[in-house]
Amino acid sequence: MKVDGTPYRTIWVAKDGRSVEIIDQTRLPHEFATLRLTSLGEAAHAIKSMQVRGAPLIGATAAYGVALAMRDGASDAALGQAYDRLLETRPTAINLRWALDDMRQRLKALAPSERMAASWRRAAEIADEDVAINHAIGQHGLGLIRTAAAKKPKGAVTNILTHCNAGWLATVDWGTALAPIYMAHDAGLPIHVWVDETRPRNQGASLTAWELGRHGVPHTVIVDNAGGHLMQHGEVDLCIVGTDRTTATGDVCNKIGTYLKALAAKDNGVPFYVALPGPTIDWTLEDGVRDIPIEERDPAEVTRMTGRAGDGRIVGVDITAPGSKAANYGFDVTPARLVTALVTERGVAPATREGLLSLYPERKAAAAGD
Amino acid sequence: MKVDGTPYRTIWVAKDGRSVEIIDQTRLPHEFATLRLTSLGEAAHAIKSMQVRGAPLIGATAAYGVALAMRDGASDAALGQAYDRLLETRPTAINLRWALDDMRQRLKALAPSERMAASWRRAAEIADEDVAINHAIGQHGLGLIRTAAAKKPKGAVTNILTHCNAGWLATVDWGTALAPIYMAHDAGLPIHVWVDETRPRNQGASLTAWELGRHGVPHTVIVDNAGGHLMQHGEVDLCIVGTDRTTATGDVCNKIGTYLKALAAKDNGVPFYVALPGPTIDWTLEDGVRDIPIEERDPAEVTRMTGRAGDGRIVGVDITAPGSKAANYGFDVTPARLVTALVTERGVAPATREGLLSLYPERKAAAAGD
Repeated sequence: MKVDGTPYRTIWVAKDGRSVEIIDQTRLPHEFATLRLTSLGEAAHAIKSMQVRGAPLIGATAAYGVALAMRDGASDAALGQAYDRLLETRPTAINLRWALDDMRQRLKALAPSERMAASWRRAAEIADEDVAINHAIGQHGLGLIRTAAAKKPKGAVTNILTHCNAGWLATVDWGTALAPIYMAHDAGLPIHVWVDETRPRNQGASLTAWELGRHGVPHTVIVDNAGGHLMQHGEVDLCIVGTDRTTATGDVCNKIGTYLKALAAKDNGVPFYVALPGPTIDWTLEDGVRDIPIEERDPAEVTRMTGRAGDGRIVGVDITAPGSKAANYGFDVTPARLVTALVTERGVAPATREGLLSLYPERKAAAAGD
Repeated sequence: MKVDGTPYRTIWVAKDGRSVEIIDQTRLPHEFATLRLTSLGEAAHAIKSMQVRGAPLIGATAAYGVALAMRDGASDAALGQAYDRLLETRPTAINLRWALDDMRQRLKALAPSERMAASWRRAAEIADEDVAINHAIGQHGLGLIRTAAAKKPKGAVTNILTHCNAGWLATVDWGTALAPIYMAHDAGLPIHVWVDETRPRNQGASLTAWELGRHGVPHTVIVDNAGGHLMQHGEVDLCIVGTDRTTATGDVCNKIGTYLKALAAKDNGVPFYVALPGPTIDWTLEDGVRDIPIEERDPAEVTRMTGRAGDGRIVGVDITAPGSKAANYGFDVTPARLVTALVTERGVAPATREGLLSLYPERKAAAAGD
């Protein structure tokens, strides 16, 4: 998407053709800086230090990390080392493992002399595939925004609430939940986005607000507490969020607090949509609340807040009572009954097993074979 | 309640008998400091600058502000001036107006020579009446905690979730929502409190966590997003919150985000109690969502966070994307259908007109006379 008029992706091959460039997301929203990755080590560091984040972008960066390694030596040993080194950066990231497995499998089948060119080609494909998936999600989601807009007086602004960051910064381009929003805006529909701050890591207030602002999409940041009040007063026409993991029955595991917004949407008759790439559906899971383990993260994310001080320095400040403990749950599960529909690259479907199978009929055979 | 072993109220007459002392709440949670108010001007400043906050405490401080004024001159003009000066500090605070009306009415009926002594007596009564009301709320609420505890295995910890600060810091002592919690703790019941951070002003993370910690009540700070997840997993046995305003039908206007927690409690079968002093019931209101105007506050409370930096200084840092707008709604309304029961100084009742009238039967005649 655009940053003040200039189109960007989150990762791209540098002009020299032998290194890649990224947006250093650790410096957002206060500073926009790009960074060149010239080696396997730098790619691994970018993932580990969260200069890149978001499952699809981590996968693409890992693929390019393998390509950078192959440029410096394409032996079986080098391939194995690149795989191990990149995997250990975020051992629980599913896209990371998927991208690395894909790269290793394809490259192993080739002679070492062919691996360098093939690795760069395949990394580019992985990035392009993510863009294509998100573009398709955007197209399907755009239809839902048009439907909501059609219920309003002609010319009235359609208000959309989102939580966390499921935007282009988390992917290679477009994003998942934000893809329909960018398409609606680019198509000239009058829209406005309520951006949940998304404590404790503030991905909404920092990343979502930043990317919407740079692309020119009207938006307002609110605290996570405010969405219910807005829905009670008709100020939200639809909600769209992303998801890290979706069960075969349509339960959705997403950033902590998503469940509360889904409850408020249900209570006020506001459609609640979840945008996701099909590959993130976990067909082995039946009951998200019961079966999906929720990561507990560093309590310091709750007790300490980072921002820009008056003198321009980025500083962390302690905000809780000294000595008080904190707990930090990363995600929650929104039961399918609260989800109006799922939006994938294949279309829009009810958040049910039948709905998902209607989009992924090839899974019917797999289910029957279980 | 206690601060590291020493019992305190939030306002008390100083040893000199002619000034009053308060806890400077603007310095919490990072520093505990008391402050002497020696004049009307200092009392007005304490309210305006939020060195004291919370409706009952503001009322008591205003009463003592009148007493301080009467000490320096008890003419009709001085009384009128004290009334006006204190009222303008927080013009929308209902308790402030109530306390000032009460003081003025009583003092006007007296000769100027009698006013000084009467004003100090009456201010002390107003403070003591608040303590008595909260003590009674605590006793009734304690019964609800005992009931929840009785459903758990013997000796198991009872987990209570609260939002914002409805503790002793907001009143003269005990608090409303926290009064039953202090009584349960003091009675030796094993309890643990989940403290909602309560963005944007963080009254939970700073004030509630501070006062629970100083009194020795086990607690954990969580972001406002986390309560739903905890309730889904059986980690909350009951919720207790305060309220700024309650309708005759039991709708509850409280700090923004309360509604979302009430929805989650309902969805998970967790009792959701609201503690309130009877005088805060607004018998003229029927429909809280429709009829209660919600204050919009300074967006800077959303975009900027204050805390203690590594060098000990208290600093504000900007946390949102530069240039992004923010909106800041102070309160939301929780419909009575989501409230398990209301707890007042007179007892526990369903959040319905009939329930409230059962506690305040004298209102039946008033209603009939409408």
